[in-house]
Amino acid sequence: MNKIEHIGIAVKDFAVSIPLFETILNTPCYKTEEVSSEQVATAFFQQGETKIELLQSTTLDGVIAKYIDKKGEGMHHIAFLVDDIRAEMKRLEAAGFTLLNPEPKKGADNKLVCFLHPKGTNGVMVELCEEIR
Amino acid sequence: MNKIEHIGIAVKDFAVSIPLFETILNTPCYKTEEVSSEQVATAFFQQGETKIELLQSTTLDGVIAKYIDKKGEGMHHIAFLVDDIRAEMKRLEAAGFTLLNPEPKKGADNKLVCFLHPKGTNGVMVELCEEIR
Repeated sequence: MNKIEHIGIAVKDFAVSIPLFETILNTPCYKTEEVSSEQVATAFFQQGETKIELLQSTTLDGVIAKYIDKKGEGMHHIAFLVDDIRAEMKRLEAAGFTLLNPEPKKGADNKLVCFLHPKGTNGVMVELCEEIR
Repeated sequence: MNKIEHIGIAVKDFAVSIPLFETILNTPCYKTEEVSSEQVATAFFQQGETKIELLQSTTLDGVIAKYIDKKGEGMHHIAFLVDDIRAEMKRLEAAGFTLLNPEPKKGADNKLVCFLHPKGTNGVMVELCEEIR
């Protein structure tokens, strides 16, 4: 793992949450992007070398909508930047972790991503991400 | 806000969770520290310019024990490094946020800290922290 690439936060409504986080972080949202395969819209804020990524569901039954129904708004995942996502997936699988997707998939912000099952990680949804070059 | 100083993760048992996060992060825990005023033990892992901070309650009814009873293990807070914690507290209070402690208090890792009430921050426990010089 090289660094924390971003922290994902599940929110209901960008119209409320983008201005809210602009105030908290004292910095503007610099990009929004929809990831239709994941039924999610994303909004980014830079914080040093790391980003805050707000996540809003684009459908009533998307993964973020279901997460909020169950747990409420709040921190959803921590994403770590890696150089070689397949090597990290192999390393973590060999160590006994369960990958939620067995092949890297295209995420927001030009990344290949893979999630670890939070049951094996003390409840923390861990994302690996590699910049697509 | 200058950067994300650390991400706090509530765990039940360091004997399980320190080796677990050493494996996930592929880096050793470099420090543990007890904050007796908060009834919590902390364990730190460096990730780029940011840290992962595991939090274990040192008493049966400490704030982290209560959090885990209610929500389970997992992400607990995001801490942002600031130059002047009193100025940031004043800015955020004027913007309508509720401070959980009206005066900065001594936290782990040689910091003055203040928490924002998560009801005003989309469920995210936000910590401000300033290095004690």
